[in-house]
Amino acid sequence: MYLSFCPCFCRQGNKLWGGRFVGDTDPIMEKFNASIGFDQRMWDADIRGSKAYAKALERARLVTSEEKDQIITGMDQISDEWSRGVFMIKPEDEDIHTANERRLKELIGAPAGKLHTGRSRNDQVVTDMRLWLRDAISTLKENALQLMSTMVERAAAEIDVLFPGYTHMQRAQPIRWSHWILSHAAALSRDVERLQEIKKRVNVLPLGSGAIAGTPFDIDRELLRQVEFLFWGSMCLTHLSKMAEDLLLYSTKEYSFITLSDAYSTGSSLMPQKKNADSLELIRSKAGRVFGRCAGFLMTLKGLPSCYNKDLQEDKEAMFDCYDTVHAVLQVTTGVMSTLKINPTVMEAALSPDMLATDLAYYLVKKGMPFREAHGVSGKVVFAAESKNVALNQLTMEDLSTVSPLFRSDVSSVWDYSSSVEQYSAPGGTAKSSVTAQVEHLRTWMRNQAQ
Amino acid sequence: MYLSFCPCFCRQGNKLWGGRFVGDTDPIMEKFNASIGFDQRMWDADIRGSKAYAKALERARLVTSEEKDQIITGMDQISDEWSRGVFMIKPEDEDIHTANERRLKELIGAPAGKLHTGRSRNDQVVTDMRLWLRDAISTLKENALQLMSTMVERAAAEIDVLFPGYTHMQRAQPIRWSHWILSHAAALSRDVERLQEIKKRVNVLPLGSGAIAGTPFDIDRELLRQVEFLFWGSMCLTHLSKMAEDLLLYSTKEYSFITLSDAYSTGSSLMPQKKNADSLELIRSKAGRVFGRCAGFLMTLKGLPSCYNKDLQEDKEAMFDCYDTVHAVLQVTTGVMSTLKINPTVMEAALSPDMLATDLAYYLVKKGMPFREAHGVSGKVVFAAESKNVALNQLTMEDLSTVSPLFRSDVSSVWDYSSSVEQYSAPGGTAKSSVTAQVEHLRTWMRNQAQ
Amino acid sequence: MYLSFCPCFCRQGNKLWGGRFVGDTDPIMEKFNASIGFDQRMWDADIRGSKAYAKALERARLVTSEEKDQIITGMDQISDEWSRGVFMIKPEDEDIHTANERRLKELIGAPAGKLHTGRSRNDQVVTDMRLWLRDAISTLKENALQLMSTMVERAAAEIDVLFPGYTHMQRAQPIRWSHWILSHAAALSRDVERLQEIKKRVNVLPLGSGAIAGTPFDIDRELLRQVEFLFWGSMCLTHLSKMAEDLLLYSTKEYSFITLSDAYSTGSSLMPQKKNADSLELIRSKAGRVFGRCAGFLMTLKGLPSCYNKDLQEDKEAMFDCYDTVHAVLQVTTGVMSTLKINPTVMEAALSPDMLATDLAYYLVKKGMPFREAHGVSGKVVFAAESKNVALNQLTMEDLSTVSPLFRSDVSSVWDYSSSVEQYSAPGGTAKSSVTAQVEHLRTWMRNQAQ
Amino acid sequence: MYLSFCPCFCRQGNKLWGGRFVGDTDPIMEKFNASIGFDQRMWDADIRGSKAYAKALERARLVTSEEKDQIITGMDQISDEWSRGVFMIKPEDEDIHTANERRLKELIGAPAGKLHTGRSRNDQVVTDMRLWLRDAISTLKENALQLMSTMVERAAAEIDVLFPGYTHMQRAQPIRWSHWILSHAAALSRDVERLQEIKKRVNVLPLGSGAIAGTPFDIDRELLRQVEFLFWGSMCLTHLSKMAEDLLLYSTKEYSFITLSDAYSTGSSLMPQKKNADSLELIRSKAGRVFGRCAGFLMTLKGLPSCYNKDLQEDKEAMFDCYDTVHAVLQVTTGVMSTLKINPTVMEAALSPDMLATDLAYYLVKKGMPFREAHGVSGKVVFAAESKNVALNQLTMEDLSTVSPLFRSDVSSVWDYSSSVEQYSAPGGTAKSSVTAQVEHLRTWMRNQAQ
Repeated sequence: MYLSFCPCFCRQGNKLWGGRFVGDTDPIMEKFNASIGFDQRMWDADIRGSKAYAKALERARLVTSEEKDQIITGMDQISDEWSRGVFMIKPEDEDIHTANERRLKELIGAPAGKLHTGRSRNDQVVTDMRLWLRDAISTLKENALQLMSTMVERAAAEIDVLFPGYTHMQRAQPIRWSHWILSHAAALSRDVERLQEIKKRVNVLPLGSGAIAGTPFDIDRELLRQVEFLFWGSMCLTHLSKMAEDLLLYSTKEYSFITLSDAYSTGSSLMPQKKNADSLELIRSKAGRVFGRCAGFLMTLKGLPSCYNKDLQEDKEAMFDCYDTVHAVLQVTTGVMSTLKINPTVMEAALSPDMLATDLAYYLVKKGMPFREAHGVSGKVVFAAESKNVALNQLTMEDLSTVSPLFRSDVSSVWDYSSSVEQYSAPGGTAKSSVTAQVEHLRTWMRNQAQ
Repeated sequence: MYLSFCPCFCRQGNKLWGGRFVGDTDPIMEKFNASIGFDQRMWDADIRGSKAYAKALERARLVTSEEKDQIITGMDQISDEWSRGVFMIKPEDEDIHTANERRLKELIGAPAGKLHTGRSRNDQVVTDMRLWLRDAISTLKENALQLMSTMVERAAAEIDVLFPGYTHMQRAQPIRWSHWILSHAAALSRDVERLQEIKKRVNVLPLGSGAIAGTPFDIDRELLRQVEFLFWGSMCLTHLSKMAEDLLLYSTKEYSFITLSDAYSTGSSLMPQKKNADSLELIRSKAGRVFGRCAGFLMTLKGLPSCYNKDLQEDKEAMFDCYDTVHAVLQVTTGVMSTLKINPTVMEAALSPDMLATDLAYYLVKKGMPFREAHGVSGKVVFAAESKNVALNQLTMEDLSTVSPLFRSDVSSVWDYSSSVEQYSAPGGTAKSSVTAQVEHLRTWMRNQAQ
Repeated sequence: MYLSFCPCFCRQGNKLWGGRFVGDTDPIMEKFNASIGFDQRMWDADIRGSKAYAKALERARLVTSEEKDQIITGMDQISDEWSRGVFMIKPEDEDIHTANERRLKELIGAPAGKLHTGRSRNDQVVTDMRLWLRDAISTLKENALQLMSTMVERAAAEIDVLFPGYTHMQRAQPIRWSHWILSHAAALSRDVERLQEIKKRVNVLPLGSGAIAGTPFDIDRELLRQVEFLFWGSMCLTHLSKMAEDLLLYSTKEYSFITLSDAYSTGSSLMPQKKNADSLELIRSKAGRVFGRCAGFLMTLKGLPSCYNKDLQEDKEAMFDCYDTVHAVLQVTTGVMSTLKINPTVMEAALSPDMLATDLAYYLVKKGMPFREAHGVSGKVVFAAESKNVALNQLTMEDLSTVSPLFRSDVSSVWDYSSSVEQYSAPGGTAKSSVTAQVEHLRTWMRNQAQ
Repeated sequence: MYLSFCPCFCRQGNKLWGGRFVGDTDPIMEKFNASIGFDQRMWDADIRGSKAYAKALERARLVTSEEKDQIITGMDQISDEWSRGVFMIKPEDEDIHTANERRLKELIGAPAGKLHTGRSRNDQVVTDMRLWLRDAISTLKENALQLMSTMVERAAAEIDVLFPGYTHMQRAQPIRWSHWILSHAAALSRDVERLQEIKKRVNVLPLGSGAIAGTPFDIDRELLRQVEFLFWGSMCLTHLSKMAEDLLLYSTKEYSFITLSDAYSTGSSLMPQKKNADSLELIRSKAGRVFGRCAGFLMTLKGLPSCYNKDLQEDKEAMFDCYDTVHAVLQVTTGVMSTLKINPTVMEAALSPDMLATDLAYYLVKKGMPFREAHGVSGKVVFAAESKNVALNQLTMEDLSTVSPLFRSDVSSVWDYSSSVEQYSAPGGTAKSSVTAQVEHLRTWMRNQAQ
């Protein structure tokens, strides 16, 4: 705030209509305006940015080599103060940039005043955000890879377990449990790819690398990158929300497919028998939170004119909250996935012959019946079984023959869940060979990412 | 968390696939689960709720009169600790309710254990939220009334200033500056009315007042009330955002209608000549923030089954942030409105004869021409003036007669901004009498609210 | 568009840089600008509004009694054309207001040109929207009451059926099925109340009833009312989404509590055995749709200056879509609720003794043990049963005595689901008397609404 | 809906509690469920997908070569019917897939029944959406490139025009008008890049190319791609909204920098003198609309379990509306940008010496003063000029010397806007050479895109 440099600007309070406060400055406005409360976590990015800028100023001969060294030494000392938790924020430090600059002046005096040559606050904010975001993306990528790795290894270890695949929350067809796991691991791999694309853009210096100062339009570019990051967080957490919803269903008494580790469950203050899957509910909830940040910031952004407007101060809290939330969710999900226990007996007991009705149709297709007709015949078989109140595979050959003469005794081969899943051996299918291939594919993919 | 009451539930860590952490509990999960970091601000509501509950327990003979007194005394002591800032939160205090109950047990021993009789954590949360929200609403209502009062008195004082009314960001017709102010004050009065409706619902006890315990469905009712509050905040700030947008335009160099007090402006770190209306930009931005909270929470809520799910923990931060934001915005807006200076000369100079083209049409209507035709004729006069590159009122009688024979020398009476505004004397109009009536109406309305 | 009245305004196309189109008008822009495609459904409101306006013009002596009659007769004829589906929209009719006015001119000639005296398009839009919205609200209220009535009568008829109440998607305590139904009916009653509040505001004429013309600020008031309506739709559908989510769970194979009527289910094109609860999934989905409309419109609105801006054209499609969606959802939900079948045997079989662990704690409370302690003891009993792998009520007296000496043979009275629910006889509770009282309360409430 | 294949499934209406409708099917439910009203526009993608699938079936020997030919001939005929607008939709055609299949059966009989072998409706929808989206992306890319081209050529042609750059809606520093244009063209180039990334992902076949049928999890992947597209639309329109906001300001009477072509303006029905920039207001509004679609769909998606749920039917309308809106906005913006006229005299007259205060500080920096101090001195000069009520460049040497002795007569060189902008010759700067380089860069970039 340059008013502190220019005391003559101070004017009299001019409250005319019985407003709220007395005096020259409104303390609520000051607090409203200040961002130091949340942007101090960018202290490291700010210092790194200023050190790089000091070097650029030297190259442009706007500071001497000696001044540059003084600035860098001073900045290193400030960095050390932050690291040790002893940096003192003063009331007039409205943001992290002001705070570090104020401290630099205390430490090295006059040369500190040269650090802002040709650099607006916006330039500085844009650079700091880029540096911060680059680190944040690296950490989140690592978190996502750890979760993926946990999931892929679990899928490899439990490849023989079958359970119902669902659509419309209704049991559809038998699939491998590992197939379910890998479908979510694959979604995560796409999240990592998208994150890489954002990182690629974050790494591009605005319009050429030689420039000392940015341009007023850099802020627009930077903000859209942040918006992209917020949306990335929303999408990534939307996956995890869907995965958590599946797991919540699987962990109900009614499904009983999985049991969460106690470390990720809690009890009830009223009902002694309850064990709630709180971790999954929290994972499920966070997509809303982060999307809210994205929606809120986009609403603030939309309709503004180009270049900087103070409205945009809202960006940082949103970005930090998005990072913190995704960071925590990825780690908790890793914990949940690495410690939950499955109940294979219950999972397989949930398979029932009617889930093979599609296979029954295919049996007829192999005998030459067009699929649409076969689908209709199979539907009639389902109805016959319902009418007799027996399972599909308990119908007699006579029952079946009534529906279609194509049924022969070899129809008994249909009633085998293991054979059923082995039919889907195409890439992405639920046959053992196919699931194994997916495991290998993802292992290779992760190795390449880690490099 | 009842596990602490039941140590035998502790089981072995059962990490199978190389997950992230070692040991029985995951510290990230604990932090994820804990809400004490933000819900401690409900300490007072929690204590008031528990004191009321203790009295209900006594009436139901579930605690003795003596036990009730012990509980109340203990709670008063805890209240005192919070007030003095000496209450010590312990690591196992996962939320404000646990913290206060833990402390009560330390203070009064066994009777503390009776306070939860027939009361689930949900009951307690629901009650605390209601009490907190009731207070929050009262404060916001007061803030809104103070802003309204500032605006209404300003409108009364500056009733004689005319300036352009705009639609489509284009100058439309002359209006009173006070008329503009009052339109926003009236919007605030509707916000206060909506807030009252929410408060009315907050005050209704869930399904009858005699009950000791609530029902599991109370939480659904409470959450929708919170959603309503979040939406109220979004709407109220949307008004203020629009008002801030108007004022931002008025404060540009190009308009120069108003000058903000220095207390609500800041300078640029790069450009010495600049004075930015940061306060208005911050006011404009906050609708996005609060709406983001509303959107995020509604997304979390939607699709959940009935009754409590841990996802709902998201509600409190959203509610607190909404309250804090609206609270600050209303106060800063009051400050801005009570200290800005208007530049009446510039405002009136912005009026131009073409803004009286509608009046010119009415002149013809009074001579008997249908409005649609008069509108067309007036458009031709505008075009004629544009062609001659003169102002509308500088066209000669000859020019006018060419367009329509109905124009007579009395047309000169049209070119008077003060007469123009005085035509709109219906309720809500921009005539002096009408604006004065609005001032009186709002003063009366505010007096009634304050009661 | 007044350009058609003023042909001399036509200028030459002035395409300079190889743009897309040739000629004076851009057909995409025209389509972009036109709203007749969606706002024609307001034809009736527009005609009613214009008829009322013609009467006001007569009272203000701006049209003669004869002209007023001509206008009204013309408008009635136009109304008749719309009713019979023979009104012809012409290419130049950009919105419903232009279309009706153009037709009026064709029918009655000159007096049609007087209908716009002192009335801007905004005035007309504001009035039309108010009239339309008032009717829409009445219809939705009726739909909601019909759904409520279906639910309340169903609750009355099936009051004796018990099933598990859930929190965290885990079985919590036995409740009446009717209790679940009524909790959602009660939520609907609050929606109806909120709708009434909006209607009350819709009915208030802008700033006094005598005015011929509105003021430019009326549009701001009207838009916020629409936003309120969009948000109301979001909230109402959020309830219904939660109710649908409950019913979807209840209709899974795993729960099997309810069976949807075929009229509200569909099959799978691939899997012959499947029957999907599509109706419930569609109900669940629509909160997202309507909230998206609300979010989108609020984003468009926020940051605009006061008064009319063309951006606001977005309001109508949002409002119509909200109405259509809520209208359909309420009716489909009524159909679902009136035709689904419950499976009481399965519902009651889902109750298990561990859901009485809270009752077991209360048993101890009645013997004098503080609740917190009793809760812990009950938890130990749950653990003992889990260890022995038996149901809670199959533990021997010896087992129980080991945990607490307060257990006596009368503990057997605890193991009764019907007695358990009868404990909750406070208002809003799940005891038969309490549920009956809720039925009566809602019946009375509905009777009062219908009046 | 397979019920039509299996008439025995028909059951009796079982309305118990006075529901709304009578009979086996609920017409509102049918309409609710049907998507043919909006998904028919995918007819071409559906036909192309089915033709490709028929070939795959032949390769897998599930249809004969002859059957494949029949299917393809039939599909070509259906395509022809759609093209000529003579395809008849029948009441039982619930979606485009059913409609085309029904018609195929009418045309070729039995072999039509084989087309669904091993393909679920989801497989088909996923494929159709991918094909449709690929085309949509190509068209939007072309639209964006056309807009960019218009902007870049305009920037090249008007490179000599200077006007004020703004931050905080306050005049900041002189910049080239072309610089402003190019900042928005550059934003568009990033949009095109993001669109390419989505297209790249759309082109990847789900998990390997040899598969006949997809997997149930493909739908999850497809939906996130759509969400990505919706978000892309929101971001792209947010840019354009900001650009429109700038232009709206520039087109006000107060700024008067630009004049829109009449083809993109409209008049007022009440005020004959008005010419509104409706096109810009509509462009500004659409980000809200598309973001609402994105928010709504994400809310619907979040919290659903994996795989298909009927809720997801909401995706298509959102996707179509997003496409239509972005498509129209890009074209209208191209029209606006190619026809607007600038008023260079007014633009340059808006420059004032105080906008050179930063240059004044740099003048001092060049004389050796640290920037922070120079900034303060320049601020004092601004204050001195304000106090004397003269322009900055009208202060005497004496005035300046009082503030700092470093001021010499060469300070007069500072007061030149053309020299000022030429200082910013780094990449991305506002110097002529720099802007020219940006023009060349974007021309080359566009040429590469077009290939």
